[in-house]
Amino acid sequence: MITDTTPSNDRFLRALRREPVDRTPVWLMRQAGRYLPEYRATRKRAGSFLAMAKNPDLACEVTLQPLARFPLDAAILFSDILTVPDAMGLGLYFADGEGPKFERPVRTAEDVAKLAVPDMETELRYVMDAVRVIRRELDNRVPLIGFSGSPWTLACYMVEGGGSDNFSKIKAMALNAPDLLHRILAVNTDAVIAYLSAQRAAGAHALQVFDTWGGALSPAMYREFSLPYLTRIAHELERGAGAARTPLILFGKGNAPYLEALAASGTEGVGVDWTVELSEAARRTHGKVALQGNLDPAVLYGNPDAIREQVRQALDSYAEGNGGSRDGHIFNLGHGMSPDMDPEHVAALVQAVHEISAR
Amino acid sequence: MITDTTPSNDRFLRALRREPVDRTPVWLMRQAGRYLPEYRATRKRAGSFLAMAKNPDLACEVTLQPLARFPLDAAILFSDILTVPDAMGLGLYFADGEGPKFERPVRTAEDVAKLAVPDMETELRYVMDAVRVIRRELDNRVPLIGFSGSPWTLACYMVEGGGSDNFSKIKAMALNAPDLLHRILAVNTDAVIAYLSAQRAAGAHALQVFDTWGGALSPAMYREFSLPYLTRIAHELERGAGAARTPLILFGKGNAPYLEALAASGTEGVGVDWTVELSEAARRTHGKVALQGNLDPAVLYGNPDAIREQVRQALDSYAEGNGGSRDGHIFNLGHGMSPDMDPEHVAALVQAVHEISAR
Repeated sequence: MITDTTPSNDRFLRALRREPVDRTPVWLMRQAGRYLPEYRATRKRAGSFLAMAKNPDLACEVTLQPLARFPLDAAILFSDILTVPDAMGLGLYFADGEGPKFERPVRTAEDVAKLAVPDMETELRYVMDAVRVIRRELDNRVPLIGFSGSPWTLACYMVEGGGSDNFSKIKAMALNAPDLLHRILAVNTDAVIAYLSAQRAAGAHALQVFDTWGGALSPAMYREFSLPYLTRIAHELERGAGAARTPLILFGKGNAPYLEALAASGTEGVGVDWTVELSEAARRTHGKVALQGNLDPAVLYGNPDAIREQVRQALDSYAEGNGGSRDGHIFNLGHGMSPDMDPEHVAALVQAVHEISAR
Repeated sequence: MITDTTPSNDRFLRALRREPVDRTPVWLMRQAGRYLPEYRATRKRAGSFLAMAKNPDLACEVTLQPLARFPLDAAILFSDILTVPDAMGLGLYFADGEGPKFERPVRTAEDVAKLAVPDMETELRYVMDAVRVIRRELDNRVPLIGFSGSPWTLACYMVEGGGSDNFSKIKAMALNAPDLLHRILAVNTDAVIAYLSAQRAAGAHALQVFDTWGGALSPAMYREFSLPYLTRIAHELERGAGAARTPLILFGKGNAPYLEALAASGTEGVGVDWTVELSEAARRTHGKVALQGNLDPAVLYGNPDAIREQVRQALDSYAEGNGGSRDGHIFNLGHGMSPDMDPEHVAALVQAVHEISAR
């Protein structure tokens, strides 16, 4: 366990504790990605996305690439969101240009009965090794964020067998066999807690749960199939105390209707997308949690002046809802970056955040 | 003009005026569609989707198909959302299995300068002819709804050149050249008003605007690029008075944050998706408009018992937020139907709405 070593740049961790910082910290979802030529070169060498994610040295290499270019305030483990169901034996693969798929999706009571929490230091050892290598290579410059998909979001891929436009299979299960779905979600929750705990033990300074598909649910279904499991993670995930605490961030696309509930879940941070004003999000969570977000990633298609103006508006919106203070805000996008984005625009964004938010 | 003939089943129009009705009216977005074998047969005969949409007799045929199967309370014109930009000369086509595309997308000031409101009775005559044929064949059994895409949603397709995951091109235009985008939106708004007026003149009893992509915008951008143009339509579209009024419904995916503004726009109805509780939508619009929606279309993948229970919850949710009354509610899905849905389940849904909502 090396999480008790505070990084020299600890803005991100301080902001997550809602402590004063000199500038608003910033990192970007999917900051290690195809928009960087050096990432594409590593991926080419690795042969495939999965080969890269499963090789700790290559995962470390791409994790650090954006930090070499931009003064980002956190690194995030390079990995796939579907490592856990893959380790459950579902057979993750990537069809050319099609996104992730599972060879053995979970559809029947028999499929569900076979699900079990994988062993973290054997079946998911490559992830923990990546965390350890990255921690060593980061040399305590900035914090390292570990992550997992949420129980609901993992279940979406597990039941659908891949991505989906309308989640027809998992929603049919929610309606026709809700107990079966709850069994999947219960195993997923145990697995996510074990997975994040192992990442923490391996050296992650903070942990983020991506509930990418929670927003596809109606409020009644969200409150039955996603929120209770996020809340259980926030309650049961052991993460230490005080400055040595490994804080948790619950990010969710489309989670704006549930900010009060998420702020009351026991998490330290909540990540929001761009469909809600940060001023409103701050008012509705009134200082209970740090907020992370929330520029529309498409802002990076704007020119540097427009990016700067959008950054200013987001920073000011947060402060407006937070009693005039910029503390407790981690700047980020509201969703991941895309391959066709310009690294120069990322540089403009990071610079604007740091300059405009300087206390 | 034949809009002054009241249909024998006028529940839908009465609900839009928030008048008492014997049962809550119901229709379904994309109720004429590929989930019906008779639709697939007509489409096969037509040769292509566009050939079917551009032939008034075939458009009439598929418009009426769901009414022959289910006791729906309204018909909706079968047409494409992109007829208007097609008539502007952008060259609509459907690449196999890929959705709509434009041969000549709108990207530059030169492209924008060329845009003009098409002539409704020449360039879009096939749509008005379809409205006239459907009105004749409907024989005043139920009301006929005409429709258009919203100025913003049409602009998305016009600038992107087709569908898009992240709206990179139009959002870049919004950031880098907002005046150019406002010129597109102004022309689109004039065109939508002319288009809906012509459909009304041809016999449509009600008019719906689909702002399918408004919810992809940040609140600041929605308030700049979508809402003002919807409001202008609600203000400027002439639609008569009293029982002869041709009411307007503004539907928007992801429009929950803006319900107060939409209710104040001057529209008669607002359509909402399933990410907001109808009780909340009713409370926040407090009787200013009729509400239409809002079951998750994926509910149709549930079994008939589950569908009935979801219908009951939606009906009760509306009444709860509307002071205990079911009046002013038009039952619908929160988005369009999908091709793999079971017609028997549609029958179960329609029956459940009528039975449970009987006064």
